[in-house]
Amino acid sequence: GAFQSLNRLVQKAASLLPILDWSRGYASPELRADVVAGSVVLFVTVPQVIAYAFLAGMPAEAGLYGALFALVIYAFFGSSRALAVGPTAIVAMMTLEVASLHAEVGGEEYAVVVVQLSLITGLMLIALRIVNFGSVVSFLSHAVVTGFITAAAILIISNQMSALLGISASPDTSMVGMGSHLLTELAETNHLALAVSVVALLLLFLCRSRLRPLLERLGLSETLIDSLVKSAPMYVVVLGILLTELLDLQGSLPVVGSIPASLPDISLNWISFTTLETLGPSAFLIALVVFIESTSIGTAMASKSRDKIDANQELVGLGAANVGASLVGAFPVAGSFARSAVNFSAGAVSPLASLVTAALLVVTILVLAPFFYGLPKAVLAAIIVVSAWQLIDVAAIRKIIDFNRTDAITFGVTFSAVLVFGVDAGVLAGVVISFVLLIRNSARPNIAVVGRVGNSEHFRNVERHEVNTSAKLLAIRVDESLYFVNARFIESYVLNELANRAEVEHLLLICTATNFIDTSGLEMLEELSENLIETGVTLHLAEVKGPVMDKLKATSFYQNMRGKVYFTTDIAMRELAGI
Amino acid sequence: GAFQSLNRLVQKAASLLPILDWSRGYASPELRADVVAGSVVLFVTVPQVIAYAFLAGMPAEAGLYGALFALVIYAFFGSSRALAVGPTAIVAMMTLEVASLHAEVGGEEYAVVVVQLSLITGLMLIALRIVNFGSVVSFLSHAVVTGFITAAAILIISNQMSALLGISASPDTSMVGMGSHLLTELAETNHLALAVSVVALLLLFLCRSRLRPLLERLGLSETLIDSLVKSAPMYVVVLGILLTELLDLQGSLPVVGSIPASLPDISLNWISFTTLETLGPSAFLIALVVFIESTSIGTAMASKSRDKIDANQELVGLGAANVGASLVGAFPVAGSFARSAVNFSAGAVSPLASLVTAALLVVTILVLAPFFYGLPKAVLAAIIVVSAWQLIDVAAIRKIIDFNRTDAITFGVTFSAVLVFGVDAGVLAGVVISFVLLIRNSARPNIAVVGRVGNSEHFRNVERHEVNTSAKLLAIRVDESLYFVNARFIESYVLNELANRAEVEHLLLICTATNFIDTSGLEMLEELSENLIETGVTLHLAEVKGPVMDKLKATSFYQNMRGKVYFTTDIAMRELAGI
Repeated sequence: GAFQSLNRLVQKAASLLPILDWSRGYASPELRADVVAGSVVLFVTVPQVIAYAFLAGMPAEAGLYGALFALVIYAFFGSSRALAVGPTAIVAMMTLEVASLHAEVGGEEYAVVVVQLSLITGLMLIALRIVNFGSVVSFLSHAVVTGFITAAAILIISNQMSALLGISASPDTSMVGMGSHLLTELAETNHLALAVSVVALLLLFLCRSRLRPLLERLGLSETLIDSLVKSAPMYVVVLGILLTELLDLQGSLPVVGSIPASLPDISLNWISFTTLETLGPSAFLIALVVFIESTSIGTAMASKSRDKIDANQELVGLGAANVGASLVGAFPVAGSFARSAVNFSAGAVSPLASLVTAALLVVTILVLAPFFYGLPKAVLAAIIVVSAWQLIDVAAIRKIIDFNRTDAITFGVTFSAVLVFGVDAGVLAGVVISFVLLIRNSARPNIAVVGRVGNSEHFRNVERHEVNTSAKLLAIRVDESLYFVNARFIESYVLNELANRAEVEHLLLICTATNFIDTSGLEMLEELSENLIETGVTLHLAEVKGPVMDKLKATSFYQNMRGKVYFTTDIAMRELAGI
Repeated sequence: GAFQSLNRLVQKAASLLPILDWSRGYASPELRADVVAGSVVLFVTVPQVIAYAFLAGMPAEAGLYGALFALVIYAFFGSSRALAVGPTAIVAMMTLEVASLHAEVGGEEYAVVVVQLSLITGLMLIALRIVNFGSVVSFLSHAVVTGFITAAAILIISNQMSALLGISASPDTSMVGMGSHLLTELAETNHLALAVSVVALLLLFLCRSRLRPLLERLGLSETLIDSLVKSAPMYVVVLGILLTELLDLQGSLPVVGSIPASLPDISLNWISFTTLETLGPSAFLIALVVFIESTSIGTAMASKSRDKIDANQELVGLGAANVGASLVGAFPVAGSFARSAVNFSAGAVSPLASLVTAALLVVTILVLAPFFYGLPKAVLAAIIVVSAWQLIDVAAIRKIIDFNRTDAITFGVTFSAVLVFGVDAGVLAGVVISFVLLIRNSARPNIAVVGRVGNSEHFRNVERHEVNTSAKLLAIRVDESLYFVNARFIESYVLNELANRAEVEHLLLICTATNFIDTSGLEMLEELSENLIETGVTLHLAEVKGPVMDKLKATSFYQNMRGKVYFTTDIAMRELAGI
């Protein structure tokens, strides 16, 4: 009785909190692995989240607090074992773009808008869970996502140009706005900041290209090498701090300034209906990007460890993490590619690794915060530029352009639209164009008149191969389902072919690729069958799939059709035309 | 030189004017057939077009003039041999709905709006030709069209209730508006008009159900019977005129009144940009309905005579016909189902039949116009109600509901939305829902783990059949192309299956139903293949289609994949698992 209900309650809680599931069978080897992984991730996390906070137009502590809460909350609610959640470059850029429309960057009002944006993004993600969105549709194609990320990376790099040069930030996030700001302010360039930027960029790029071979020659383990290479931003940060301290440069170039060495106050925010209306659409888009970025990283890691992630549970985990970020005054968070990769390759086996990172982050905030005072903003800008640079995947772009013309167009439209009109309009344009092209393509499916290859059971396009045909029989293979988008096209193709072949007595539709038939397709078949009778042509079908046949059997079309439904094209060809 | 250019010019003209093509080989038997058909159609045309003019809120002559010009112009530009173009019930109702939003029905301004609507509709159709719309996409599914037509028929019948009762017309075309108007005005019912309505309705329904068997018993030809039955509205019109004349009822019930016994003045209309903006969206929708109604009638007739129609040429023909209608002060025109059917079954072989109808229409206007003065409007209302009634196709609705759940939902949404929100919003809702459901369905395709049936070469779902499988091999058949909408779903299905089967060493994807792979699908396969290697599983493909294989061969995925692409599932099963 009471014990059983308690048990059920625990099971129910376990299904909502995946961490309870993982904690079973957890022992000291797993704990050691998680502690190591969690510690290594810290070195990548600290410089990145401070840098992304500045990218989002927020103070450094917003990045640290956001990472801390996102890590802890996601560890309890998320379904991926190794995903490291927190501030990311793309989402920070989107935050800047959206919030700067509603308040002046850096002001008090701006911070309020950003926090509201995090809260609404989190609530949107949870709302998407409620409508079972995780299992519904992925409507952002690879081409749209690649176009969006590439253009966003260019926006991010352009945005950081002012910080690299040590001039004031552009108040406008559009390409044109940022470009004209740079041109007018170019004379104000802080040469010291520029020198720091150039050195930091050089060091970061050198670490990426030269550090690995060097460490490999030292015979270190792959995991250690990976962590050491990915910690490059930390070395540059430490160098930057030492340099400004030793040379006393704090007054001569923009630095981070004081970061409170205390844990965040938690404050609940209320959002009015008006705020929801104003920020809702942008928050929805951010929620989509958060979900897609995070689940694609999570899925990749899961498939490497014969594991799985639950897309709906991810919505809960990411939603809760974003609500958590809003509680501590942070901007929206997502799964970070770089930090998750380090976590995974360093051997994280459970979300406990993220809890370890979070605990060390608390220590960092309480103990090390004062040390970041003299960190030049130019160093952070260099870190952002290098991570944005890595988002531009030339090989992926080339693959899209080479492999599929439709995807190439979609990529081009999304990329240009994001650059010209911003992220919101750009992604929307990409989604619309990808669906329009998808429908356009399936509206004009591949259709072939086929004949028999020699005496074999193979049937091929008469235009491409030497095949046996009969003047009495027109055999047509449609490489698509029959439904409203293409029903008329297929019908006119058939009528066209028939209009040119006066001797045809039998029309055979080969349905190998027909996965379903909707009412428009059925109606087309029925009309075609009836009308062709008047011209002395009988319609037959061949190779109809099981599920399609089940549906067809109940229709009056099937019951009244004069022709036959053949099991194979072979039988049909022999019976109807003797070939 | 000169002769050749002239010849080219003639050929070019011929491609724009299909009538030049038909006139070749035209001889006296064809001429006789067309004269007979064209004359028979006149009897159906006159009462219908006068009735539809009143439905559209226009004077009787607008219907006659519109029919006249539409017939003549379409005969030259259209591609269907037997389509009879002119006023139709649905388009008249849409005209009323749109124009009554911008001006008071029956006023001078109303007539101006209607004429502008015809002109813009015509220009839209021609613009659609320019963007090659005819060969692009049919995005109105059978379910949407049926839902729209059924709801529009109910709107038409409701709209005619006031004319049947002899009370003033409702100023509002919504169901609620018309209903409340009826209730408030019910006391004003003209009992004489009501009596005429009841008699006319009874006669029309009797003609439909009893006249045919009667004529068949007389041994008349099928074509003659058909024409006689379809001319029922003409008998009721003649009876109505005789009755009012003989009993001198013109003062006691609403009658048609005077119709000018002269040909129309032609007046060119200019449309301002503001008008285009205001009426554009509605005109676009009307243009779509005109195109779809007309081409579906045209295609049905073409398939009955081993003929074809050219959708792009139809856009030109219908566009020109609508521009023509606007020149003579008429409302938008389309292919009429009833008149085209009579034309076709009476033996029309070329557009000359329509020219014959037009010539007789000129005679009717010039000679018979005065006779229509006393025709009771109640008779016209009865004619409209009966034709609208025929638009409600219960068998088609039942078929949609029984055959396909998705189409049933689409039908229900379109039907309700048209009734509640009107035609514009209703059709839009139908289009959106049909695409959303289409994409939702292909996002979750049918996927099956398969095994071998006995020792055969047949492979079936393990959950439905007794089949041979191997713990080492997971064979999965996906009944859909691999693209962005379903790539993640397929990937998580595969990972889920693998997470439950620790011994699996080979994953075989059977691609019989994969008509194309986009970059998202390719990316998914590539990631899956690479990541699975780390868990000791090798990905293989089987039965990849020719065009898909061509594309795949050029990719690095194919060149680097560790597994193989098997020609048949049979070979793969034997080689990978010895079954």
